[in-house]
Amino acid sequence: MSQYSLRDDPAAIRSLVDMPEWKRFAVAAQTCPSQADGLDLLEAPGLTLDASGQRHSPELNAAGEALLRARGFEEQRRRLLAGEIVNATENRAAWHTVLRAPAAPPEVLAERERMDAWVRKADAERRWRHIVHIGIGGSDWGVRLAVSAFGYAGTWRDVRFVANIDGHAIEGGLAGLDPRDTLIVLVSKSFTTSETLENGARAREWLLAAGLDPANHIVAVTAQAQRASSWGVADSHIFKLWDWVGGRFSIWSAVSLTTALAVGADVLAGLRMGAAAMDGHFTQAPYAFNVPVRMALAGVVNRSVLGQGSLNIAPYDSRLANLVPYVQQLDMESLGKSVDLAGRPVGVPTGPAVWGMPGTDAQHTFFQWMHQGSDGAPVDFILCAHADHHWSVHHRQLLANCLAQREALMRGKSLAQARAECLSEGLSEEDADRLAPHRVHPGGRPNHLIALPRLSPYSLGALLALYEHRVFTQGVIWGIDPFDQWGVEYGKVLARGIVQALAPTSAEASVAGHDASTCHWIRQLRG
Amino acid sequence: MSQYSLRDDPAAIRSLVDMPEWKRFAVAAQTCPSQADGLDLLEAPGLTLDASGQRHSPELNAAGEALLRARGFEEQRRRLLAGEIVNATENRAAWHTVLRAPAAPPEVLAERERMDAWVRKADAERRWRHIVHIGIGGSDWGVRLAVSAFGYAGTWRDVRFVANIDGHAIEGGLAGLDPRDTLIVLVSKSFTTSETLENGARAREWLLAAGLDPANHIVAVTAQAQRASSWGVADSHIFKLWDWVGGRFSIWSAVSLTTALAVGADVLAGLRMGAAAMDGHFTQAPYAFNVPVRMALAGVVNRSVLGQGSLNIAPYDSRLANLVPYVQQLDMESLGKSVDLAGRPVGVPTGPAVWGMPGTDAQHTFFQWMHQGSDGAPVDFILCAHADHHWSVHHRQLLANCLAQREALMRGKSLAQARAECLSEGLSEEDADRLAPHRVHPGGRPNHLIALPRLSPYSLGALLALYEHRVFTQGVIWGIDPFDQWGVEYGKVLARGIVQALAPTSAEASVAGHDASTCHWIRQLRG
Repeated sequence: MSQYSLRDDPAAIRSLVDMPEWKRFAVAAQTCPSQADGLDLLEAPGLTLDASGQRHSPELNAAGEALLRARGFEEQRRRLLAGEIVNATENRAAWHTVLRAPAAPPEVLAERERMDAWVRKADAERRWRHIVHIGIGGSDWGVRLAVSAFGYAGTWRDVRFVANIDGHAIEGGLAGLDPRDTLIVLVSKSFTTSETLENGARAREWLLAAGLDPANHIVAVTAQAQRASSWGVADSHIFKLWDWVGGRFSIWSAVSLTTALAVGADVLAGLRMGAAAMDGHFTQAPYAFNVPVRMALAGVVNRSVLGQGSLNIAPYDSRLANLVPYVQQLDMESLGKSVDLAGRPVGVPTGPAVWGMPGTDAQHTFFQWMHQGSDGAPVDFILCAHADHHWSVHHRQLLANCLAQREALMRGKSLAQARAECLSEGLSEEDADRLAPHRVHPGGRPNHLIALPRLSPYSLGALLALYEHRVFTQGVIWGIDPFDQWGVEYGKVLARGIVQALAPTSAEASVAGHDASTCHWIRQLRG
Repeated sequence: MSQYSLRDDPAAIRSLVDMPEWKRFAVAAQTCPSQADGLDLLEAPGLTLDASGQRHSPELNAAGEALLRARGFEEQRRRLLAGEIVNATENRAAWHTVLRAPAAPPEVLAERERMDAWVRKADAERRWRHIVHIGIGGSDWGVRLAVSAFGYAGTWRDVRFVANIDGHAIEGGLAGLDPRDTLIVLVSKSFTTSETLENGARAREWLLAAGLDPANHIVAVTAQAQRASSWGVADSHIFKLWDWVGGRFSIWSAVSLTTALAVGADVLAGLRMGAAAMDGHFTQAPYAFNVPVRMALAGVVNRSVLGQGSLNIAPYDSRLANLVPYVQQLDMESLGKSVDLAGRPVGVPTGPAVWGMPGTDAQHTFFQWMHQGSDGAPVDFILCAHADHHWSVHHRQLLANCLAQREALMRGKSLAQARAECLSEGLSEEDADRLAPHRVHPGGRPNHLIALPRLSPYSLGALLALYEHRVFTQGVIWGIDPFDQWGVEYGKVLARGIVQALAPTSAEASVAGHDASTCHWIRQLRG
């Protein structure tokens, strides 16, 4: 704990809300129009951002740039990309960007080649018709996302995902598979994740019960090779997860072994290329044209100035359903903190709740709320200009729905318009007066539109890196550590005690120290 | 539009925020302790509610009861369950409860028996190895929920769901299936839902291309039998969706044909029994012991008094992953409105954003934010006391995690505790001072714990009816119409215009009237 000091980081010593640059930014956000008249398009590798649906003005842009400079953003960004310490509370780097860099260090390239060779051999032998990928959180959602994005119409290897400690998950994950042709991929950075080790143990028992040697059927991805080896994974089946890669950034590591087996190593190569290109854009583009920076500033306006409590992710592509939990984890685990690096309350609301569902599905579930609910939520609309199927009527309707929902959220519908509409439908004056208020849309609700030319690995890689850097930049503005997750430790500690207390042989004294309700449920559920 | 009048509904004439009963309720909520010391357990058919984690006091309970009486709750509830008009803006009943009533009307029983007979015949013939269920929103999520809850380990019929207009959805939905043994289930109440009809058309073409007669392979569930028949569905293959059943309540109708084929008609019978039992509880239990009523009041406290913007649904059962979008739709489409029946602004925030993920998965994604983010969110924890697998170590860990997360959210961790913890780990005084603020949990975050004895159809049916009635009761308190959805119409109208403008032959004039950004994207994406 001796390497990092706040003294190295003069910007972090200042409290955000006391900074004149913050006050200028907040005032500029409050006083500029809710949406621009003109068009605000920004180009980045693999995608285009349309920010027309956010508050912006020349003064707000200038104030945002001044705020970032005052927060030491350029130095923080340099440190991030150079693999220096950016995770202050844990005194660590967060160097996931190097895993996708064209000039990655030799040990990174060597491990990647080892994984690729393993996949090539499996492909040549036509082995592993079934893959059961066992991991949770960051060891799960990135792979789910890539497999559903590029294997949406099925792959010759079918992939099941098992994350939850709930025994029904592993039961369902193994049900009906032929163990002889099943590969178990165990992913845990620490190789101590209780969900993953318990589920892995059930998979091992299942292989043994079929008379198979688990060592031939299990691979592990971990930073703790020794633990995996002691657990029984063959050394040649252990792939390296670097210690300086956080779980929510681990899609760029050997965690994606399953992706390579399911949809091809070339997909991984494309994802890396797109992400690396976005890293370059993030490093080089001027503030006003820097897509992650501009999205970050808009997010801070919506959250910390306008008080919006959540952010909706609306991919208009059914293949991107898993982008929602992916970004949800990335954003909420990184920005779900309310004290700054100096240990003070940040003083403004930080990371929002992130949630969503692909359109058009979402239009038939919660979009009512987006349009007419009390708060609504800012939306990131995501579309692909070209489809990978040939039914143009579907694609045209999909795109039209995306543009129409966005337009309705921005434009709104006044009481006078709603009343005229009722009358034009033949309602009486009285009925029009009664119904019109129910058809009013307030409008002016903020959004981004992110357009990919098509859902290529390159564009998806760029999109994921965009979200990473947007989140990082917001962390710099708020002055929080986006790379730690102290809040998840407490529940783990409490759970260890409660597991003991739930054992059938547990003494009554084991409930001591819990509140009345927790005591009740421990007694009730013991057994 | 002549049958309903506000004059029939004296309670709705009053504005909520002007009512002394509202002021009394809000003051009682603000002044009572954040959580009770004791235990606040309520029993209902199929489940137990622990409300200990919500604000409550005798005064708040009494104020809630007085508020409901002043809003005419008992009369509204009577009208709901009697099939009288409760959807004021559309002048309609919302009589889904009768579909599960033990003494359902003869025409309901007859249609149910017709569906059951059809399923029995298909089972006897061992037909339909594959089912492609095509529906969206309310015609989709209920079936997905039931099939994943009770068919989590696979079923002899595999079921694919196709909802989105995105052509990749239907492409993936049909890929790899043997059309000779595939049944297409088309669900659309109006039989005009564009997603469902387009996807159905692709399925029909796929059957024709295989040399099959689509009439033998397609069934429809709809309120518009004539339209389905004209579309080409055989009359014997058309099942009735009643006009007085809203999409988000249609799980109780023949929409569940797919459920019956996949997991059995007995599952449907159990769901109905549980829901009917909850209907009885909702009708008869005194306010203080009425589970939907108590959950509704707590929700109004959290949303409208404490200002919480969202509600997290955390089922600690991997089979209930689809409960999250199900409740999200039910709640947000019903309560995502901000004007009351008289057309006035409600004056307090109404329905929250509803989102979530099963635990323990969620603990590895966004629970950091729940514990240490700026706002957090109230949580509905849901657990099943008994598992349907036999790995007690998994189940004990699952339950322990649920109780531990809940306890951590309620109890919190003070700065002094966090500092002591750091020191006990061997950190220096200086490092402890620096790190302790990052380990503080504010605590006092509200929650419900809903315990089911096990995930039986009876308990799940009761749970779904509980959420329906909780939502209905909140609608009565806020004075809004929980059964309409005017906010979804506007986007549909705009989309129809944009579809035309996107056609390759469309004239430049077709962009007229749109904002600059929408114009840009219409030109860019045309083709």
